[in-house]
Amino acid sequence: MLPLESVPNFSEGRDRPTIAAIGDALARHARLLDIHADEDHNRSVFTIVGSAEEIVDALLAGTAVAMERIDLRRHEGVHPRIGAADVVPVVAIRPQDADRARDTARIAAERMGDELGLPVFLYAELADGRTPAFFRRGGPDELQRRIDDGELAPDFGPTRLDPAVGGVIVGARRPLIAFNVNLAGRDVDAAKSIACAIRERDGGFPGVRALGLDLPRAGHAQISMNVEDWEASSLHAIVEAVEREAAERGVEVSGTELVGMMPAGAALAAAGQVLRIDGFAASRVLELQLLE
Amino acid sequence: MLPLESVPNFSEGRDRPTIAAIGDALARHARLLDIHADEDHNRSVFTIVGSAEEIVDALLAGTAVAMERIDLRRHEGVHPRIGAADVVPVVAIRPQDADRARDTARIAAERMGDELGLPVFLYAELADGRTPAFFRRGGPDELQRRIDDGELAPDFGPTRLDPAVGGVIVGARRPLIAFNVNLAGRDVDAAKSIACAIRERDGGFPGVRALGLDLPRAGHAQISMNVEDWEASSLHAIVEAVEREAAERGVEVSGTELVGMMPAGAALAAAGQVLRIDGFAASRVLELQLLE
Repeated sequence: MLPLESVPNFSEGRDRPTIAAIGDALARHARLLDIHADEDHNRSVFTIVGSAEEIVDALLAGTAVAMERIDLRRHEGVHPRIGAADVVPVVAIRPQDADRARDTARIAAERMGDELGLPVFLYAELADGRTPAFFRRGGPDELQRRIDDGELAPDFGPTRLDPAVGGVIVGARRPLIAFNVNLAGRDVDAAKSIACAIRERDGGFPGVRALGLDLPRAGHAQISMNVEDWEASSLHAIVEAVEREAAERGVEVSGTELVGMMPAGAALAAAGQVLRIDGFAASRVLELQLLE
Repeated sequence: MLPLESVPNFSEGRDRPTIAAIGDALARHARLLDIHADEDHNRSVFTIVGSAEEIVDALLAGTAVAMERIDLRRHEGVHPRIGAADVVPVVAIRPQDADRARDTARIAAERMGDELGLPVFLYAELADGRTPAFFRRGGPDELQRRIDDGELAPDFGPTRLDPAVGGVIVGARRPLIAFNVNLAGRDVDAAKSIACAIRERDGGFPGVRALGLDLPRAGHAQISMNVEDWEASSLHAIVEAVEREAAERGVEVSGTELVGMMPAGAALAAAGQVLRIDGFAASRVLELQLLE
């Protein structure tokens, strides 16, 4: 049986002691594979794997540390968020583990509400595909207004957001790829318009969500993406499209950035294309066969 | 502990019952991951994994079946060979298993000599890097002449080659990639000249061995390669070079073909290039981390 994965996103990408403290808390219970901290996003993405119990314990411990150490009232960053622990997905690495991932996310959500006193909102597979963006628009204040107006309610925990820690979005989903393309220079209008051209919402690639962002600390504009279905929309086709759209706008792609980890299949699809091997897949990669 | 791999090559790529019988014999002892049979090469490459004991037992059983069912006197194919079981490498999937792979290959070699009465020639890491080509040039008759002249001697088994089964080349080596690039059309001169341009022997890529072949059954010419050090010579750079060399000669690359399996690292290097992710490696691929 493969472990489950979780990729909690916390609203701190600058203060190294806080990032380390969250990492330590997660690592006390589950295996910590990766930390991706971004100063402009002011956000860190942790990748952990473990059993259902390990994942739940790690998420509770990491979220408790984030609640202690992060104050949203002093938080500013280019990535939208509604909480110190902003979004907490539990991921089935293989489709056959989807039920286990959903159960695990639900248990974590309930315990965050009960034990940490945090307003918890279910998303993705636990809430008919509702997205984090649904909760984030307008930020924590707008979310509180919508709760007060009865437009929505937390699934667990109190109905009042603590302004310092906000709420948390918890759910289960398939593996996705968080992938950023960086432009040379700070033409954020170009980044926003390229994001429009490629994202599903505006007629682009299925399952691709994209934002154009200005990263003042890094000194460049960025197309920040979630590729939710890498089988429907291959990463190499997306990179190619971004490069083409950028060229049309007279801007240059300076590089790309993978946030956290990538499912092997997405990497192999890209390799198969450049190596011209038809149907190249995990069945042809030695180490991946050893997992079976 | 990861299993060992072995990739025995047998001189039969056409007779399905023989290929299946060899596969069955291997699979009775080890895990059979892949069979790659080629009618023009008239050769089949099997990929197995298992413990040292499983690998030895599988190789003995598969070779015994090949000796029963293959008659080299009636064998013709475009790939050079000196035996029914032609070359039998044992592969350490990770560097730390190299000693175990060498020990396993030596045990298999000794038992093939003693129990199967087959002249066994050590190669690669068991024979100071000696290559299969060293034994194959001129075929089994020339090999017998060199034995009779005292130029070389089998490491195990008799000094006389049975004309029906020949000898076997056994050794341990790092993972390599057996990779063929197919041309549109049968311009074998172009294939040979492209092979020259890219192989190490003639000043091309380090660790790349290449032959230009005419495949009458498939109806096209082919550059058949072994990429022995995919870290020194990346597969995507080789494919790019072959495409360029082909274009210069006015021929077209119709596709490529992976023989057997590929180490994950080689696929990720290609993916990292097309996706423009600097230093993309196994550490960023979820499933590969689960192997650790």
